Amino acid sequence: MTDLKPLIFITNDDGISAKGIRSLYEAVAPFGDIVLIAPDSAQSGMGHAITINHPLRLEPSDLFDCEAFSCTGTPVDCVKLGVYEVMHRKPDLIVSGINHGANVATNVLYSGTMSAAVEGAMEGVPSIGFSLCSFESDANFDLAKEVVAKVVKEVLERKMPLGICLNVNIPYVQKADFKGIKFCKQANAYWDDRFDERKDQFNRTYYWLTGDFINNDQSDETDVYWIDQGYASIVPTQYDLTAYSSMKELENWNL
Amino acid sequence: MTDLKPLIFITNDDGISAKGIRSLYEAVAPFGDIVLIAPDSAQSGMGHAITINHPLRLEPSDLFDCEAFSCTGTPVDCVKLGVYEVMHRKPDLIVSGINHGANVATNVLYSGTMSAAVEGAMEGVPSIGFSLCSFESDANFDLAKEVVAKVVKEVLERKMPLGICLNVNIPYVQKADFKGIKFCKQANAYWDDRFDERKDQFNRTYYWLTGDFINNDQSDETDVYWIDQGYASIVPTQYDLTAYSSMKELENWNL
Repeated sequence: MTDLKPLIFITNDDGISAKGIRSLYEAVAPFGDIVLIAPDSAQSGMGHAITINHPLRLEPSDLFDCEAFSCTGTPVDCVKLGVYEVMHRKPDLIVSGINHGANVATNVLYSGTMSAAVEGAMEGVPSIGFSLCSFESDANFDLAKEVVAKVVKEVLERKMPLGICLNVNIPYVQKADFKGIKFCKQANAYWDDRFDERKDQFNRTYYWLTGDFINNDQSDETDVYWIDQGYASIVPTQYDLTAYSSMKELENWNL
Repeated sequence: MTDLKPLIFITNDDGISAKGIRSLYEAVAPFGDIVLIAPDSAQSGMGHAITINHPLRLEPSDLFDCEAFSCTGTPVDCVKLGVYEVMHRKPDLIVSGINHGANVATNVLYSGTMSAAVEGAMEGVPSIGFSLCSFESDANFDLAKEVVAKVVKEVLERKMPLGICLNVNIPYVQKADFKGIKFCKQANAYWDDRFDERKDQFNRTYYWLTGDFINNDQSDETDVYWIDQGYASIVPTQYDLTAYSSMKELENWNL
């Protein structure tokens, strides 16, 4: 009864040829039937962007032993095209990544990897974003693949709470130094941005975004804290951005 | 003592030549010294995207009677360039919009207008996104400008709660039919997406994203509900996406 296998959709933001999505494919392939749509180029930092002013194109890919396409759009476009155009139904699971680099703290908002997972949750599909805390294009994903398999197995057996997805970050440590998995909250860290001001060949000014990641959140309940301790972090992540805790204070305003 | 006037930063996602940002400028100019940086082209649907793989450029603009630039980047890029490169300090207020079209419910995640305000909150600046519930490029912004002035005055006099910004949507109604302003939550509505599949001049397939906005949220506490009743809605919007309410359930998982 192979048609009863879970249908698993894979995407990422580093692009279809990244080692991270190859590693994710290898880790989840044993769990179900796979459909893969990933951007044809790097889409890091694209957040929840969708393409509405340009056409989107899909190109079949033979990089994977499953139905696979590269896409000219963003990670969120890939999820929408997967659900509404390629599969014409909701998959049982959406996985995104494995991102080359951490998506902890407020970086969840900039992350194409995580925005694909958030979009999956908005579509009513259990969804997980995975990130490895190394930006190396040739990083070792062996430990990450083990964490992916463990989390995916659990999600397929459990019922994911409504309205959320999971943000999983895996420390870049030796397997012997890996401590386990912790549910925790998004650290209240931020980027102290800078712009490199440079001149092009026509002497016109341009800017490159750069900066330092600053974590002033001293709580021991955050993703940044647990990753530093050698754990993989899982932050349950919601798309309801309403700040309920501020409502009472605001209702005293004269509006 | 003109140097004690509040410093107000303006951006949007419809681009620097949109009627909405002109209206926003006219509404807030009386309240302070203005710096304006807006995208040089439409950036609707860009969400929290930042530009990291391309250079950014700023071009001085004489469209406004203040320090103003058009920018090749996204709305969030405009905020970062404003704070870190042009002003070299945090403004007293960031306002974004007035968007041509509603940014209610889960649309907050796709919205460049609101992502600029969320970025402002992440930078520690009181920030507000404004949207008019009309997509017309030549819409009448008179009522919207009155709402902007009222909200901006209140925010400058009050202390904005930490970690949030405001998502203000203004109904497209006659002034006589306008009922007032309500604080409320983000409706749990969604897009039932579709893709128009078309052929280009080379007979290659391409896709345009389209779809229907579906609101199954029957609560009378949502932005969609109050706008339908003739009110402007204000949703306090946070960048901490942690789903605290799911934490207890998840901690029972075998991970």
